[in-house]
Amino acid sequence: MKLVHDPVHGYIELDEFARRLVDTPEFQRLRRITQLGFAFLAYPSARHTRFEHSLGTFHLAKKIRTYNPEIEEGALYAALLHDIGHYPFSHTLEGLYPRHEENALWVIENGSVGDIIRENYSIQEFKKLLKHPLVSGDIDADRMDYLVRDAYYTGAAYGVVDLERLVRNLKFDGKMLVVEEKGIMAAQNLLLSRAMMYPTVYFHHTAKIAEAMLRKAVELEEIALEEIRLMDEIDLVSRLRNSEKVEVRELIRAIDDRKLYKRVYCSNKELDEKTISTLKRELQEEFGHSALLDYPPKPKYEERNAFVKIGSKTKRLSEVSPLVRSLVEMKDVYWRWCVYAREGIREKVRQFLSRFF
Amino acid sequence: MKLVHDPVHGYIELDEFARRLVDTPEFQRLRRITQLGFAFLAYPSARHTRFEHSLGTFHLAKKIRTYNPEIEEGALYAALLHDIGHYPFSHTLEGLYPRHEENALWVIENGSVGDIIRENYSIQEFKKLLKHPLVSGDIDADRMDYLVRDAYYTGAAYGVVDLERLVRNLKFDGKMLVVEEKGIMAAQNLLLSRAMMYPTVYFHHTAKIAEAMLRKAVELEEIALEEIRLMDEIDLVSRLRNSEKVEVRELIRAIDDRKLYKRVYCSNKELDEKTISTLKRELQEEFGHSALLDYPPKPKYEERNAFVKIGSKTKRLSEVSPLVRSLVEMKDVYWRWCVYAREGIREKVRQFLSRFF
Amino acid sequence: MKLVHDPVHGYIELDEFARRLVDTPEFQRLRRITQLGFAFLAYPSARHTRFEHSLGTFHLAKKIRTYNPEIEEGALYAALLHDIGHYPFSHTLEGLYPRHEENALWVIENGSVGDIIRENYSIQEFKKLLKHPLVSGDIDADRMDYLVRDAYYTGAAYGVVDLERLVRNLKFDGKMLVVEEKGIMAAQNLLLSRAMMYPTVYFHHTAKIAEAMLRKAVELEEIALEEIRLMDEIDLVSRLRNSEKVEVRELIRAIDDRKLYKRVYCSNKELDEKTISTLKRELQEEFGHSALLDYPPKPKYEERNAFVKIGSKTKRLSEVSPLVRSLVEMKDVYWRWCVYAREGIREKVRQFLSRFF
Amino acid sequence: MKLVHDPVHGYIELDEFARRLVDTPEFQRLRRITQLGFAFLAYPSARHTRFEHSLGTFHLAKKIRTYNPEIEEGALYAALLHDIGHYPFSHTLEGLYPRHEENALWVIENGSVGDIIRENYSIQEFKKLLKHPLVSGDIDADRMDYLVRDAYYTGAAYGVVDLERLVRNLKFDGKMLVVEEKGIMAAQNLLLSRAMMYPTVYFHHTAKIAEAMLRKAVELEEIALEEIRLMDEIDLVSRLRNSEKVEVRELIRAIDDRKLYKRVYCSNKELDEKTISTLKRELQEEFGHSALLDYPPKPKYEERNAFVKIGSKTKRLSEVSPLVRSLVEMKDVYWRWCVYAREGIREKVRQFLSRFF
Repeated sequence: MKLVHDPVHGYIELDEFARRLVDTPEFQRLRRITQLGFAFLAYPSARHTRFEHSLGTFHLAKKIRTYNPEIEEGALYAALLHDIGHYPFSHTLEGLYPRHEENALWVIENGSVGDIIRENYSIQEFKKLLKHPLVSGDIDADRMDYLVRDAYYTGAAYGVVDLERLVRNLKFDGKMLVVEEKGIMAAQNLLLSRAMMYPTVYFHHTAKIAEAMLRKAVELEEIALEEIRLMDEIDLVSRLRNSEKVEVRELIRAIDDRKLYKRVYCSNKELDEKTISTLKRELQEEFGHSALLDYPPKPKYEERNAFVKIGSKTKRLSEVSPLVRSLVEMKDVYWRWCVYAREGIREKVRQFLSRFF
Repeated sequence: MKLVHDPVHGYIELDEFARRLVDTPEFQRLRRITQLGFAFLAYPSARHTRFEHSLGTFHLAKKIRTYNPEIEEGALYAALLHDIGHYPFSHTLEGLYPRHEENALWVIENGSVGDIIRENYSIQEFKKLLKHPLVSGDIDADRMDYLVRDAYYTGAAYGVVDLERLVRNLKFDGKMLVVEEKGIMAAQNLLLSRAMMYPTVYFHHTAKIAEAMLRKAVELEEIALEEIRLMDEIDLVSRLRNSEKVEVRELIRAIDDRKLYKRVYCSNKELDEKTISTLKRELQEEFGHSALLDYPPKPKYEERNAFVKIGSKTKRLSEVSPLVRSLVEMKDVYWRWCVYAREGIREKVRQFLSRFF
Repeated sequence: MKLVHDPVHGYIELDEFARRLVDTPEFQRLRRITQLGFAFLAYPSARHTRFEHSLGTFHLAKKIRTYNPEIEEGALYAALLHDIGHYPFSHTLEGLYPRHEENALWVIENGSVGDIIRENYSIQEFKKLLKHPLVSGDIDADRMDYLVRDAYYTGAAYGVVDLERLVRNLKFDGKMLVVEEKGIMAAQNLLLSRAMMYPTVYFHHTAKIAEAMLRKAVELEEIALEEIRLMDEIDLVSRLRNSEKVEVRELIRAIDDRKLYKRVYCSNKELDEKTISTLKRELQEEFGHSALLDYPPKPKYEERNAFVKIGSKTKRLSEVSPLVRSLVEMKDVYWRWCVYAREGIREKVRQFLSRFF
Repeated sequence: MKLVHDPVHGYIELDEFARRLVDTPEFQRLRRITQLGFAFLAYPSARHTRFEHSLGTFHLAKKIRTYNPEIEEGALYAALLHDIGHYPFSHTLEGLYPRHEENALWVIENGSVGDIIRENYSIQEFKKLLKHPLVSGDIDADRMDYLVRDAYYTGAAYGVVDLERLVRNLKFDGKMLVVEEKGIMAAQNLLLSRAMMYPTVYFHHTAKIAEAMLRKAVELEEIALEEIRLMDEIDLVSRLRNSEKVEVRELIRAIDDRKLYKRVYCSNKELDEKTISTLKRELQEEFGHSALLDYPPKPKYEERNAFVKIGSKTKRLSEVSPLVRSLVEMKDVYWRWCVYAREGIREKVRQFLSRFF
């Protein structure tokens, strides 16, 4: 039994199988994948990685299983590995490549981590466990860890959640994790905290700009999926720094030195697919890598998958809680797309946009 | 300059005038007035008093004034004394006597604390300051202190608020404290935290029952307003323990030993004034002090008094925030009245109630 | 299984037997015995009681037993009850009456708490358990709880200890709790923290003065052991407030209003028994209750009872740690006796003392 | 005035001059210099960087100056830049290159950070400020920040210090920062905390091994001082990963994958210079990069530079505090040199060493 010290959970215990999974190159690589992408440009202390978060998720999954011993053991190791497929800077590059969940399947099939799994599980079986409610619901071990951890590392006051109470009141009913009556307030608090973390931390405009710049650099560098699959942030950044294309070198240099592009225009009016691609193309033609459209997917915190047990009935939390219901509206308040540009050409881009619309 | 160590704010500085106010018997008495009444029967660690809270409110008021130097200095001392009129166990007895704000006026006029105030202020002027927005809005120094403090002492995860950000973004516009744009999320979090503290801490049924029992005991003991005005909890409890009436002694003994009455019936349907008083009278006739109606006033957290500045316009926070809007609904979910009774007669009371309605 | 929320340990689980012990009048009385006596006059927030501390000690004892299942179960309930004999204001009155450990034996033999114990244990057997290493060593559950708790409630930075690591590295060898190698640093930190809490909190002069004043009042009031045994702070203070002796009323009034006596003279030179009693008598004759000698017992933090396991050998921690060794010296730096007096007569007392020595 | 959110200090204010210094490439580079080198291999969460620490040091320096307005303003900017010369992985490479303080002088003279400084200060003058007591004493802003920060990020219980009290009780006497009487306990706690951080965090053997391996890789790669001066960790690691020498690639791969060398032999007996270099040479000849001698300099926490004011006299803290005195001894307990080797050849290295000595 190996003990890992963690400021969020105290001590995390790793059994021998978990320890061996952690000791693979694929898992150690997570130490070099920042949990919150470029959030550290706005919150300098947000330097935590997918490594700690994965250990924390495993830890909470194990605690939930203490109260739900019918959960199969394999789900714990799936919780440990649920983020194994993340690309450098976490979600930043998911627009350009398959989602990290898909990449995880590839890593598990092809990495040494898969060799260890095969000792006890078939890969097919294990792939299913990666979608276990322990790590894929609206109230799950993954989310419980990252919220509290992100709050700890950013110093944001929003992500303080009574994890102990929540863990004690999550019941696995064979298909999903249901919150029992005594845990409702804590569950509600978790969803609210998350909703408040979005505009203040996860969608902080400084991070969004740097992420859009990195995406552009990676796009221009034309890094193949085969290459990016197992890159860490050192590989990626040094590749871009040493690019043959001056635009790529300029972009990564600007990120490194925090000479970021500025917002030229933001809006929360949705655009149709065609407008988006036309706008993108014309910006590229007119301004090259100096002006960028950032059109993020609408956030999905509809909280549809949080279920609670009231008496003998299972209901959606949004049915019982007006607060949770209002989160859907809140989403619309904070979502928006933007055009960013290099400081010197802001005015020109502004004129271009007013002509475009 | 005197320094007081406080686990919530670090160090609280008291200037000479504040120190002299604190050193009066009326203010020292607040050390023996529990902040949260009988909440400690549910959260044993909630033993903090109006004394610490008053110092904390003064501290925050002073910080707010740093960013709003046009606030008059006297408002700080009003913040310090805003709770000077509390009766034993804080809000518990307010149904039987004038509200604590009224009692505060009496204490200030008649106590040695008033003599000190008169050195610098007229009493009339000071009374007005007691309604200053620093301590009487929906987002004010009073509320900011008690939420964070109550969370600290109960261990509840709900009251964690970014006070620093809020303080830096409160602007006094001559009439009220308005939240500036950068403080909106923190303000929203404050109101949400408060809304979650209500059902879990402030309205915890264990505390409610003990409070109803104490009210009954005080009612039976027929303590005059003149007596209660300056009583502390030691005076009150020992008076009840030594009462000539056996019912009073039984009630306080039951509270002391935590042999509390049980809930017989609860409902969130409102009753009209007449029904309430009939029910109360009939319960008294039938069961004496062994059955109690607890019909609390509906909570007033409509958040009508929280204002924010969006661009150049001042708006209600509830207008901009769907989350805050939903708090009004939440109120209705958690408010309810109950009938409590001594363990042995629960069944009889239940039957009585089914006949009554 | 009952859960109690505690800001220090999160949730404390009480099994049925523990719950029944907690629900006795003797145990509930601990809610009205302040953990740190009059420390709240210096640290206003130090309002925690022996009740929470007793629950916390039980909680830690149970955790230690998880790693040492050979510890008998009864020792846990002894941990729960180890402070049941405390008088009002904790250690304040121990100079006048038998130590609280002795009073505990009386309470257990005569209280309803004893009736419950007898269901599973003989009283003789249980009395032995009260001296179990779980609550009577230099590194034990009692000390681990109070240090961390006192730090939390005072806000002092000294009592932060890695309890989890310590708990995991305490081994019961049949006679005592021995710290294993991996826990040495945490154990050392516990002892250091305690040593720093002494001068800053436990021996804070403001608390010491109020305690000396209370002792004098109780002495003058001539409260018999039979009366004090089960008094809570409400009983005691109201008894003194209503005393027939004006001196007693004056003393308690001065404590209530925090109009404390002042230090006239302090020294760390030891006095012999005879000098102490002569000085005391002459002060009484000359100044009545207006001047007080406070000659506290020398603190016993020689740390003789902390043992560690180095390889296969059990050694005293003081043998291996120069830091712990130096604590003995530190003790001598901070211990001292004082004479306090009412503000108005300080000069006279000073003259008296210079004649006396 | 720019505000930076920091979980340790709340909000850090940067004035315009500070903000411009922060916005240079040299300062932004500190975001990619890990504060604690490879400590994250033992404490996964220790991912904080010299960037946050530099801001925190500036913040504390400013607070100290509030109570000591005679400190010249330039010393604050020196505090901000005091770590600008750190190489990748902080102290790890200082054995191979000039100390980071010397490199800082070069960076300031040659970097764009120097251009900004020159607007207000002569470089000569500024270089002197880098040795200001604010950042070069035993109790200074630098140390105060890193201890509390390292404790926060590792979760270690040792580095909790009452910074507020210390700041309020540091007096600049023209030559150094002297601790006033009320701050002695906090100062003592700072030094103790540091002493406990050494064996548990700073000298954790896992980090020491990885650091020795990195040093070897850098040595073999023969990176010139001119190259390393402004490298960040991305530059260095990718350089080593892409080395032409297989040994270098093996070493960095082993660090990346956490397949670390093992301890073969450790001792706290000092060796003379000649023995050290002979041992080093022979190990290299016999085992190449597969066996490493790690002979760290003896730690210098003699605490000679912590001064306190007792009455009107300035004394060394070690004179007044037996605890601090004992820290010197403690040093000797924990210092040691080791030989590490690749797992497969441990036995051979052991035999070699027994022949050598």
